[in-house]
Amino acid sequence: MPAKYVYSFGGGKADGDESMKNLLGGKGANLAEMSGIGIPVPPGFTVTTEVCTHYYKHGRRYPKELEGQVRSALERVEKIMGRKFGDPRRPLLVSVRSGARLSMPGMMETVLNVGLTETTLPGLIEESGDARFVYDSYRRLIMMYSDVVMEKAAGVEPKDGHGIRPRLEHLIDERKHAKGVTLDTDLSAEDWRELAARFKETVLEVLGKPFPDDPMEQLWGGIGAVFASWMGRRAVEYRRIEKIPEEWGTAVNVQAMVFGNMGEDCCTGVAFTRNPATGENHFYGEFLTNAQGEDVVAGTRTPSPINDESKNDANSTQKTLAEVTPSAYEQLNSIRLKLEKHYKDMQDIEFTVERGTLWMLQTRTGKRTGAAAARMAVEMAQEGLIDRKIALMRVKPEQLLELLLPMLDPKVERATHPVAKGLPAGPGGAVGEIVFTADEAAELAKSGRKVLLVRNETSPEDVHGMHVAQGILTSKGGMTSHAALVARGWGKCCIVGCSALRIDMGSRTLTIGDKTYRQGDVFSLNGTSGRVFDHDIALVEPDLEHNEHYMKLMEWSDSFRKIGIRTNADTPEDAARALKFGAQGIGLFRIEHMFYGEGSDDALFLLRKMIMSATLAERTEALDELFPHMKDDIKKTLAVMGGYPVTIRLLDPPLHEFVPKSRERLEELAASLHIDLAALERRAEGLHENNPMMGHRGVRLGVTYPEVTAMQVRAILEAAGELLKVGVKALPEIMIPVTCTSKELDHQKAIVERVHSEACAKLGLSKIPYLYGTMIEIPRAALTSNRMAEVAEFFSFGTNDLTQMSFGFSRDDIGGFLGDYLEKKLLPEDPFASIDIEAVGELIKISIERGRATRPDLKVGICGEHGGDPASVRFCHEAGLNYVSCSPFRVPIARFAAAQAAITSTPKTQAKPAPRKAAPKKAAVKAKRTAKPAPVKKAAKRVAAPRAKAAKKVAPKRKAVLKKAPKRASAKKATKKTAKRR
Amino acid sequence: MPAKYVYSFGGGKADGDESMKNLLGGKGANLAEMSGIGIPVPPGFTVTTEVCTHYYKHGRRYPKELEGQVRSALERVEKIMGRKFGDPRRPLLVSVRSGARLSMPGMMETVLNVGLTETTLPGLIEESGDARFVYDSYRRLIMMYSDVVMEKAAGVEPKDGHGIRPRLEHLIDERKHAKGVTLDTDLSAEDWRELAARFKETVLEVLGKPFPDDPMEQLWGGIGAVFASWMGRRAVEYRRIEKIPEEWGTAVNVQAMVFGNMGEDCCTGVAFTRNPATGENHFYGEFLTNAQGEDVVAGTRTPSPINDESKNDANSTQKTLAEVTPSAYEQLNSIRLKLEKHYKDMQDIEFTVERGTLWMLQTRTGKRTGAAAARMAVEMAQEGLIDRKIALMRVKPEQLLELLLPMLDPKVERATHPVAKGLPAGPGGAVGEIVFTADEAAELAKSGRKVLLVRNETSPEDVHGMHVAQGILTSKGGMTSHAALVARGWGKCCIVGCSALRIDMGSRTLTIGDKTYRQGDVFSLNGTSGRVFDHDIALVEPDLEHNEHYMKLMEWSDSFRKIGIRTNADTPEDAARALKFGAQGIGLFRIEHMFYGEGSDDALFLLRKMIMSATLAERTEALDELFPHMKDDIKKTLAVMGGYPVTIRLLDPPLHEFVPKSRERLEELAASLHIDLAALERRAEGLHENNPMMGHRGVRLGVTYPEVTAMQVRAILEAAGELLKVGVKALPEIMIPVTCTSKELDHQKAIVERVHSEACAKLGLSKIPYLYGTMIEIPRAALTSNRMAEVAEFFSFGTNDLTQMSFGFSRDDIGGFLGDYLEKKLLPEDPFASIDIEAVGELIKISIERGRATRPDLKVGICGEHGGDPASVRFCHEAGLNYVSCSPFRVPIARFAAAQAAITSTPKTQAKPAPRKAAPKKAAVKAKRTAKPAPVKKAAKRVAAPRAKAAKKVAPKRKAVLKKAPKRASAKKATKKTAKRR
Repeated sequence: MPAKYVYSFGGGKADGDESMKNLLGGKGANLAEMSGIGIPVPPGFTVTTEVCTHYYKHGRRYPKELEGQVRSALERVEKIMGRKFGDPRRPLLVSVRSGARLSMPGMMETVLNVGLTETTLPGLIEESGDARFVYDSYRRLIMMYSDVVMEKAAGVEPKDGHGIRPRLEHLIDERKHAKGVTLDTDLSAEDWRELAARFKETVLEVLGKPFPDDPMEQLWGGIGAVFASWMGRRAVEYRRIEKIPEEWGTAVNVQAMVFGNMGEDCCTGVAFTRNPATGENHFYGEFLTNAQGEDVVAGTRTPSPINDESKNDANSTQKTLAEVTPSAYEQLNSIRLKLEKHYKDMQDIEFTVERGTLWMLQTRTGKRTGAAAARMAVEMAQEGLIDRKIALMRVKPEQLLELLLPMLDPKVERATHPVAKGLPAGPGGAVGEIVFTADEAAELAKSGRKVLLVRNETSPEDVHGMHVAQGILTSKGGMTSHAALVARGWGKCCIVGCSALRIDMGSRTLTIGDKTYRQGDVFSLNGTSGRVFDHDIALVEPDLEHNEHYMKLMEWSDSFRKIGIRTNADTPEDAARALKFGAQGIGLFRIEHMFYGEGSDDALFLLRKMIMSATLAERTEALDELFPHMKDDIKKTLAVMGGYPVTIRLLDPPLHEFVPKSRERLEELAASLHIDLAALERRAEGLHENNPMMGHRGVRLGVTYPEVTAMQVRAILEAAGELLKVGVKALPEIMIPVTCTSKELDHQKAIVERVHSEACAKLGLSKIPYLYGTMIEIPRAALTSNRMAEVAEFFSFGTNDLTQMSFGFSRDDIGGFLGDYLEKKLLPEDPFASIDIEAVGELIKISIERGRATRPDLKVGICGEHGGDPASVRFCHEAGLNYVSCSPFRVPIARFAAAQAAITSTPKTQAKPAPRKAAPKKAAVKAKRTAKPAPVKKAAKRVAAPRAKAAKKVAPKRKAVLKKAPKRASAKKATKKTAKRR
Repeated sequence: MPAKYVYSFGGGKADGDESMKNLLGGKGANLAEMSGIGIPVPPGFTVTTEVCTHYYKHGRRYPKELEGQVRSALERVEKIMGRKFGDPRRPLLVSVRSGARLSMPGMMETVLNVGLTETTLPGLIEESGDARFVYDSYRRLIMMYSDVVMEKAAGVEPKDGHGIRPRLEHLIDERKHAKGVTLDTDLSAEDWRELAARFKETVLEVLGKPFPDDPMEQLWGGIGAVFASWMGRRAVEYRRIEKIPEEWGTAVNVQAMVFGNMGEDCCTGVAFTRNPATGENHFYGEFLTNAQGEDVVAGTRTPSPINDESKNDANSTQKTLAEVTPSAYEQLNSIRLKLEKHYKDMQDIEFTVERGTLWMLQTRTGKRTGAAAARMAVEMAQEGLIDRKIALMRVKPEQLLELLLPMLDPKVERATHPVAKGLPAGPGGAVGEIVFTADEAAELAKSGRKVLLVRNETSPEDVHGMHVAQGILTSKGGMTSHAALVARGWGKCCIVGCSALRIDMGSRTLTIGDKTYRQGDVFSLNGTSGRVFDHDIALVEPDLEHNEHYMKLMEWSDSFRKIGIRTNADTPEDAARALKFGAQGIGLFRIEHMFYGEGSDDALFLLRKMIMSATLAERTEALDELFPHMKDDIKKTLAVMGGYPVTIRLLDPPLHEFVPKSRERLEELAASLHIDLAALERRAEGLHENNPMMGHRGVRLGVTYPEVTAMQVRAILEAAGELLKVGVKALPEIMIPVTCTSKELDHQKAIVERVHSEACAKLGLSKIPYLYGTMIEIPRAALTSNRMAEVAEFFSFGTNDLTQMSFGFSRDDIGGFLGDYLEKKLLPEDPFASIDIEAVGELIKISIERGRATRPDLKVGICGEHGGDPASVRFCHEAGLNYVSCSPFRVPIARFAAAQAAITSTPKTQAKPAPRKAAPKKAAVKAKRTAKPAPVKKAAKRVAAPRAKAAKKVAPKRKAVLKKAPKRASAKKATKKTAKRR
């Protein structure tokens, strides 16, 4: 049997179905499916993706069987439609559309009205009785065909940099100008006829070839153009971003044309089976009377709502489809219900009513906002349409993230008008002073100012400024521009292609309309909607506890996930916040963090004194002074966490990081150490290292200065012991960082045991429970995990450092080449954002396997920044980790990603699930209750401070939430904005 | 059967033999063995090492069976000797000596004359007819026993910091002073009798206990003291250095005393069956008439030579043993021959002649110098005593190294007198200005001066000065002092414990005798002999080509080794030198090296210009200028290497390493780039990295600046192509450094292929043969080697970086903690000196396995500095590498170590042996012949320059040879200097 390259559909049956997306593409498979379940679809056929692959493998030639199969399929269409392709009386017209396995909206080409020729024009005019419609269709064909087939697909360089399309558009403008009209609809049949003729002359003149008057030539030209567009610049770029393999190829759908523009009893529209912005369960869509789909996209006319639920500010006065043609609306609505029942998901559909007859042109799973995704998933599960597992899989982690982001206060935003609108390229809200260069952004941000970087477009040289900006706004570029990609990568608020902006770099001003702004003026951006405001709008945290759909998703997530979720938290405030987000412990409490930030001056001074000590005596003095600070700090967090484990990492960074830079501070320090400034500077100099990341840090400090380890351990154990004595449960886990040999663990263990005895004696306790373990962040530690586990009761993968050492990439210095690596596809993505499963992942797996071989109940977690990255969470689940730990704001993402991982995969090594405690909210309450010591109580209160206050302090949190961000073009495009859809 | 704890020997038979060293210790096993083969050995018994282990496991208690077994064994000795222990008439005296599995000379205790009491004294006097001898023996017993048993083993703190021994010695001095004599031999029987009495009073007074008058108490005291000394400070320290496990324990040998001091027909001596300094096959030793072994050690009398061959400057006028007692000498000589035939190795023996009867007290394998080791091994093989494999195993790599080191010109040295003598702690010769602090050493060395660091002793704070010094000289400390350990670790010339030195730090002067020297005075050190000269003596390279034993060892090595040996060489001079040393190719030619050193100014300037370029145009201009320099440089080395492969590593270090520091240079550069200084400084600033070792370097530069790769590859291929055209074979191997993903290799390969086509076209060649491969120096590269080998035709392990990344140790910064790590035994040794087999080794094995799974004929080598470390060479052999590459001067060591590895182990993965070419010398000749282009010829000539010139230029070579150095106390102690032997 010869290979089947063409699949027919229509007339109530089809060769293919929905399951054949790989072969027929998404569109083709769905057309076949709809046809198969009795939904009215214009008949047509699909040229398979295999033809595309063959086409590129064989020097852009088709398999020899194709021509015959296309001819037969076309005959079938002719039969169903009662028309003939090229027939002078009842001519069949067809559309030629792309259709890849995954939707690539607007990235490939389409040709409509194929089959209109000098021969078929009269017949169609006679049949339709509408010469204007026919010539309008004809000029559209010439325009599209010359642009798409004759220019783009043929690789013709546009003359003077201008393609054929603007030239043809110019002819229309001239004609309108000559007639003194402004709308296309004001042009007559004769106008279009003459324009069509002028078009053909221009095509011949500009492209050097005549527009083909043969229908079959048009058809093959259209098919070729679609295949050619698979390798077009836009499509290639889009695939790179969306990680769609080139070898998938696209299918081509050839389908009988139906006309929404054949008169006032015709219309065309797009709709969603539920509201894609809110998720509400009502039909939602818009349509244009007497129009082709192209017109809806072009946005020259404001479409009308299909029903009352679809009304908005712009179209609320227009008549709805339900009002205009109730029967078509009713039929459409029943198809909507049938489709949702059939596909069990929200559908995005295209329809045309031709002279009262409804035709479905397309159905596909609809894109949706994060809020809508959550709501639909929960409600569909509650309706019984899907089960909970499917509901959880329906929401992408990055959609969940949208719910967590701070946003412009919706009450304020609703009451004000944007000064401009662009493409929503990075989610959430952002407020700040506008600046026009990356350097200015960096400078202002350094001094603590919040800035928005405003540029025509961005380039890799701007990355440092983009990084520190609250948000990014560009006048040019689309969803795949540099700014959009980078911002999405970081989850940073970003609006691109905001064409209303006029930036003057000379005067450093921004003009929108007739208003001019200067650097320093405050703007607000809504990156989820693309709206730009020229004033300050407060950012607010989303009210998650009252978001029933979010709460349901979290509840269901916890019921499925196998892996525990902890948080990286260094303060009682962060700890309390993480508990509210559902954390089950602290996976990383960085002991040095108490020396950063506000209120840490005293402790920092003492730490510096300790660092600058040259003798054991000096150091011991400084340590003794430092001890009470450290103990109190640890105690507060242990108290907040109640009975949850708290992994405390001993001093990790290279000491010279703490050396003060200012002369004043240095002098202060010298005085306290009773040495002169020169001596102090020499000591500071002595701490300098060439590669501090691989220098004297972590456990290496504990080995050279055992007294520093002893002090820290004493602070931990006495803090825990003192809590135990007042009835507060404390579960400290002492974690040794930067270990490369188990002997280091032995060495430090001896200190821990000695201090434990001393602390017990001091507090009159027989024992203070603690665990002793290590970070696995050095490749050698991973490889020697069998030995490590002889001493360590737990491992925690420090995937930041492990990635640094495994790749030999200094995270601080990667900026010099990472861009090139991603650009040139040498790396699939930033390995610091998502775990490199191939090598870093192998080290982790080796480590777990060897560690558990020695100690079967070894507790294993991860505390690098990957802990909040969904792909990494999945890896951790599959690798059999007991828990992941991430920043407080990523905890919900981690819980959710863990559930998705549990639903779709089976871990190879079954992790012993971390003991799960009562629901997170309860735990937080309990933490408050048990947090008896005064300072902790205060801390817990601070967390519960009124939201107004929280809104002001949003910036650092935002950073935390956004550190890992959606990598893929987000689903937000699927709002009612239908630009570029096709 | 009860456990056997005591093994008897003597009277022509023995319970044990030589194979039982683990149980009986080396000395005990050899006494048993000698006894078994009929050599006259005073009878005795050995208390096993198991008793030592038991003793320390059970709170210093003996197994209960021990007492009875000792008693029976003692009875056996009594029977053989016809004497009784404690018998008033014919009393038996015994010695109690330690005897560990490996010799630990002078590190443990001995007690002689055990059994002398008030009761046995008269009998012995009557029997010997020599009261003076008996009282002399008695006072020796009291002295040793009180010191070793009653003070040291009992842990008694010496009063006023002075032990019992100096007090007793003081009594002797007083007596001599009172009698107006100077020598012990001038004291009479009565003197000794009275002194013995005074000794006993003093012991009671100082130690609070009487000297025991019971022979059995003395015996058990002696046994206990030996066991106690196993855990003594000296022994523990020695074991740490020599890596002898504590759990081995020591045996105790109790043996009938025979007396070399019972009159003029008695003597005692030590001898070697061949000359331990030169290796010559003649009997070599010395003896003292009427003396105990102790006297030979003490050095108060100059021993006499046993024969003419043993004469030296100091003893040439004395009568030899052969002359004094020809019969004893003859008997001794026949025992010598018997022992060598039996043990098949040079023996170090102790003997005593008691009233004409010869007794052998000990035999053991003798220590020897490097030269002696080589000669003995070769000659014994030629004599048929051993086979070639054993001969090769007889020489330690560090002994071979001795042969390679530059040394003080022996002709000059022989003609001059040393001003002082110390312990030979680090081998070879060194000449330089004396300095007294490490800082001064560092400062002078910076300005290119050669210095010798002279200190009383060194500490870790001096390491930077020690590192830059040519040699180290200390007045204090022994073979295990800090200076000795560090210097040996580096293979640096070092003399310690040179007590004649008086250093005045205030005036910065050194006084020896009555002569005072100032900083800057030139000294010369012979670290192999310990001799110090106060003037300049030229250093000379050893004349290896005329050293027949060395040449034989190399020849035999090559016949056994399985692994190829290449060299790391960046210049034609180094390449030629390495060929002479037997290298079979270059494993690492660092392309950036041409920018270092003399004569590189032009190229360096252009490199800097390239680095500082901000645009592709600027960079291309600089690259075009740089190209001819690079091509010429590569061409010269390729020409020298003739048909041997040359692995050329593309630009590796972070660019900012090349940024000039001086304002003048910066201005020059700015002018050349047509930018101002500020702009240049900004560019330089932009190159700064926090962790450059993991920054923008290696292939990352080639990815971001493909034009830089292209220029280098063009230089390589055109150089090779131009040679090919004139008939010179050139085999370049292009090596990509710092790879972490195979995609980098794909990316660079495309450039290489393009440039190859261009170069072929330019030169009119159809092809320029080359291999394309990569360094494996990043853990991720090792783990993904299956992919790497899809593109790479060869791997070369960059074990320096691989160690850095695997441990997270920055080699530049390791100084801050490595000392502590070695000190606290957290690391067995510096992983940059010897491959960490556990983890780095595993990565290497994984890489090879995966690489060869993809490409079975993958060529695998190592080019890190481990390539010249014998233990690492062994690892490489076992891991199945094709070759190791090391610095030119390490090539012989590598050849030799590879042979040893091949002899003693079987590789798991059989390496395909690198094609071996003609003998090294021939290759060198060929290289000269084929090296047609003028500059190369010149270079080759320079190599063959007269030795006088070479001697002057010795310093940098020395550094290269010494980078890896003997870790163990070297064998040089085994010269005629017999101090501390026992």
